[in-house]
Amino acid sequence: MDELPGALGTSASLALRLGQTVFSSASLLFMCLDVEFYSYTAFCYLVTVMGLVIPWSMTLLVVDAYSVFIRCLPRQPRIMLVIVVGDLILSFLLLAAASSTASVTDLLLEAGGFYCPERLCSRYQLSATMAFLSWFLSLASSLFNLWLLPSL
Amino acid sequence: MDELPGALGTSASLALRLGQTVFSSASLLFMCLDVEFYSYTAFCYLVTVMGLVIPWSMTLLVVDAYSVFIRCLPRQPRIMLVIVVGDLILSFLLLAAASSTASVTDLLLEAGGFYCPERLCSRYQLSATMAFLSWFLSLASSLFNLWLLPSL
Repeated sequence: MDELPGALGTSASLALRLGQTVFSSASLLFMCLDVEFYSYTAFCYLVTVMGLVIPWSMTLLVVDAYSVFIRCLPRQPRIMLVIVVGDLILSFLLLAAASSTASVTDLLLEAGGFYCPERLCSRYQLSATMAFLSWFLSLASSLFNLWLLPSL
Repeated sequence: MDELPGALGTSASLALRLGQTVFSSASLLFMCLDVEFYSYTAFCYLVTVMGLVIPWSMTLLVVDAYSVFIRCLPRQPRIMLVIVVGDLILSFLLLAAASSTASVTDLLLEAGGFYCPERLCSRYQLSATMAFLSWFLSLASSLFNLWLLPSL
């Protein structure tokens, strides 16, 4: 089952899912360490999207871990299609959230220290960076599984 | 050659490309009617992305129009691959630009009339809406052509 690295059930896929889970959780954590984020629509959107991405990544992480360490699971075309479409939709949501957060943080930084103290703003920047990384990994997972789809 | 509506060379593709060109140009126009946009990174980014998207859409619009009205062009797998990848990359750039613009406009609106007079802000909102529409059409083109790709 290791014909294509990155497809569901391989160790590369396990690494991708692990990265997604870690980066999304880190992004959520950096955003939520204080409750300031309620003031800005873009930050609320990021938190909402992360609330969707983290359970999705963790579920697939568990599936991959089971498939790698315990027993190879059969791949069914329908389930793969659901995973590909879900990954694509989530990666679009992640990209939108990450770029919104980055641009709003940039604007707040330019406006000076009144709206956003130095310490807080760098935390928002970190959060946006983590969201971008999570988007990249999610897109990679989706493309690898899409590549596998016609051969099923 | 009309087996799949939306693939390169069909009239549906012509309509999609026409929509992309119109919406991108409208978005650029609404953003650039005054030179205020230089103050904000997100708006500059939108203008840059539109400067990439408009030539791309217009080129493919001409190809589609030639293919529909004059003479059916042969589809080569390599050229289709370039078109699919280009559309995908541009649609990601468009989504990032549209969501950045939307979130910055939202923040400016909340900050009140000092940063952004009523008339200007509604123009930015229109620009972001047009960019979202253009993203949607670009993604649709990309997916239709991607669907066609394995059969070539």
